[in-house]
Amino acid sequence: MSTLSASQSPVTVVGLGLMGQALAAAFLANGHPTTVWNRSAAKADALVADGATLADSIRSAVEASPLVVVCVSDYDAVHELLDPVGASLAGRTLVNLTTASSTQARETAEWATKIDSAYLDGAILALPQAIGTADATLLYSGPKAAFEEHQAALQALGETGTVYLDEDHGLSALYDMSILSIMWGVLNGFMQGAALLGTANVKATTFATLANTAINVTTDYVSAFAQQIDEGRYPATDATVAIHMGGMEHLVQETVALGVNTELPNLFLDLARRAAADGHANDSYAAMIEQFRKPSI
Amino acid sequence: MSTLSASQSPVTVVGLGLMGQALAAAFLANGHPTTVWNRSAAKADALVADGATLADSIRSAVEASPLVVVCVSDYDAVHELLDPVGASLAGRTLVNLTTASSTQARETAEWATKIDSAYLDGAILALPQAIGTADATLLYSGPKAAFEEHQAALQALGETGTVYLDEDHGLSALYDMSILSIMWGVLNGFMQGAALLGTANVKATTFATLANTAINVTTDYVSAFAQQIDEGRYPATDATVAIHMGGMEHLVQETVALGVNTELPNLFLDLARRAAADGHANDSYAAMIEQFRKPSI
Ligand SMILES: NC(=O)c1ccc[n+]([C@@H]2O[C@H](COP(=O)([O-])OP(=O)(O)OC[C@H]3O[C@@H](n4cnc5c(N)ncnc54)[C@H](OP(=O)(O)O)[C@@H]3O)[C@@H](O)[C@H]2O)c1
Ligand SMILES: NC(=O)c1ccc[n+]([C@@H]2O[C@H](COP(=O)([O-])OP(=O)(O)OC[C@H]3O[C@@H](n4cnc5c(N)ncnc54)[C@H](OP(=O)(O)O)[C@@H]3O)[C@@H](O)[C@H]2O)c1
Repeated sequence: MSTLSASQSPVTVVGLGLMGQALAAAFLANGHPTTVWNRSAAKADALVADGATLADSIRSAVEASPLVVVCVSDYDAVHELLDPVGASLAGRTLVNLTTASSTQARETAEWATKIDSAYLDGAILALPQAIGTADATLLYSGPKAAFEEHQAALQALGETGTVYLDEDHGLSALYDMSILSIMWGVLNGFMQGAALLGTANVKATTFATLANTAINVTTDYVSAFAQQIDEGRYPATDATVAIHMGGMEHLVQETVALGVNTELPNLFLDLARRAAADGHANDSYAAMIEQFRKPSI
Repeated sequence: MSTLSASQSPVTVVGLGLMGQALAAAFLANGHPTTVWNRSAAKADALVADGATLADSIRSAVEASPLVVVCVSDYDAVHELLDPVGASLAGRTLVNLTTASSTQARETAEWATKIDSAYLDGAILALPQAIGTADATLLYSGPKAAFEEHQAALQALGETGTVYLDEDHGLSALYDMSILSIMWGVLNGFMQGAALLGTANVKATTFATLANTAINVTTDYVSAFAQQIDEGRYPATDATVAIHMGGMEHLVQETVALGVNTELPNLFLDLARRAAADGHANDSYAAMIEQFRKPSI
């Protein structure tokens, strides 16, 4: 169901895996003349039926639009595809939504500068089915001017969730990993609790209500600790690292006694003990940042 | 500033450490005739100045009120104090707010039954300075009738945060540990992210805004996964364990490359790999519960 309109700018999507197909479909749905290309051409069929144009080569795909979006498995694939058509990318904006490390993102930005292409590195915090909906968050880093030029088109992928971060191309990758760290922290903490309560036949859904209240409350601590981290001083206005350690010892004992997994509690306790050993026993929990900054022991 | 009123029921507080003092002060502030006792009597001075009655023995402290609240360092101290005055506790309600394991709570409940005392085991999810404010959550488990009889008095400690859980005396301890697991999961996940972003000079306060949005969004996943955990089936309606594993591999690589702590990312990845090895690669993340239920390898 495409509503092609002359007012929308042309977009090219390279890579039509699960995610690339969702990206192309969202551009089409927003009326962008959309050119697509994929190593295995058959993956373009449904998009072509919906109005996309299948390019006959990667070169003509790139040359069809001022904005080229690439989303393939990894950066080796990105370079395998795009290195041969560097000359065609000159003067265009390349948006790379392939998952990468911050180092890869910065290296690719250097390559793009050499071929005279404006480069935005992006990270997708969404599943393919969420692309184009309010549930999609997409992070972009690189030249702000390039982002602003194509912001309207990029918002087809996630209108409210289109976030520009910084000129540093590595930041979308770093934010991606940082936000996932929190998400896994929450989910694993919940699993730990659900396993403990499961030994007393408490349903996970019963726990979830109180758990979600606790999760929402934690945002206050995050804000307060963030301030202390930036100041590099951790006065304990609430519980000290020592008080947290006492609670963690209880948690470890409980997990051992009930025969559930002790790994996460043991890691919590280890990290807190090291912070205390470094002289932070009477500081706030924000002092833990110093343990996370260190390479592992 | 106590406003003693005949309409409020008498309360006894045994143990006047940081927390016991806060509890007694909150009862006083709500107009409860408050009798206190502590091993080191001097800790009662400020409370006595505010209208509390210092009992001359643990026995007369217990006998002064139908509701006896105890909050000392640990359960050894609880028994050292209360075992000798079991006969005096008969017919009264004992609320034990000392931190404990669920096993200790259940054992103490058996002891209380023998001496014919109604027993509620409680857990305090608050710092002393939050007692009596909207920030205090206190969890209670044990006979519901005993809770309801004294609910009005207990609400002096945290009006909206006074939560009755279950007849099983072990549950306040288990919920306490479960909620703390989530809290440490969130905070450590945030520290991991802040350490990663710190390598690119992103301030923790800058990260906190996006982090808190992500934390709030995670509650939707918790609710959905809780349902699947209870059903014992984990169909992937969103990302599979395999997709999470891919992201975790990126996270581990990024932490290694940037020289920050890899322990939490490695644990995330290990747990997910074991879930995949157990046949859950194509299930939702809810399948991870089975790893948390197992004793550690
Ligand atoms: N799916 C998600 O939930 C999700 C979420 C966030 C981010 N992402 C990221 O989005 C990117 C794509 O994911 P996906 O789910 O679309 O993966 P996918 O379904 O496995 O598709 C992979 C795509 O990469 C292409 N490709 C791989 N190696 C290539 C090479 N050497 N030369 C040319 N093309 C090559 C494939 O082409 P063929 O069709 O010819 O094999 C296909 O178009 C990944 O970086 C992923 O981390 C995905
Ligand atoms: N403080 C918090 O932030 C917090 C938060 C949640 C839960 N809690 C829990 O509340 C409880 C009390 O903590 P707190 O902060 O008040 O600790 P605290 O300041 O160290 O006070 C300990 C109390 O226990 C008494 N005590 C210890 N051993 C004793 C014994 N053998 N016989 C008689 N009395 C004994 C002490 O009496 P003396 O004064 O004579 O030494 C004092 O009244 C703990 O279980 C703690 O986990 C505390």
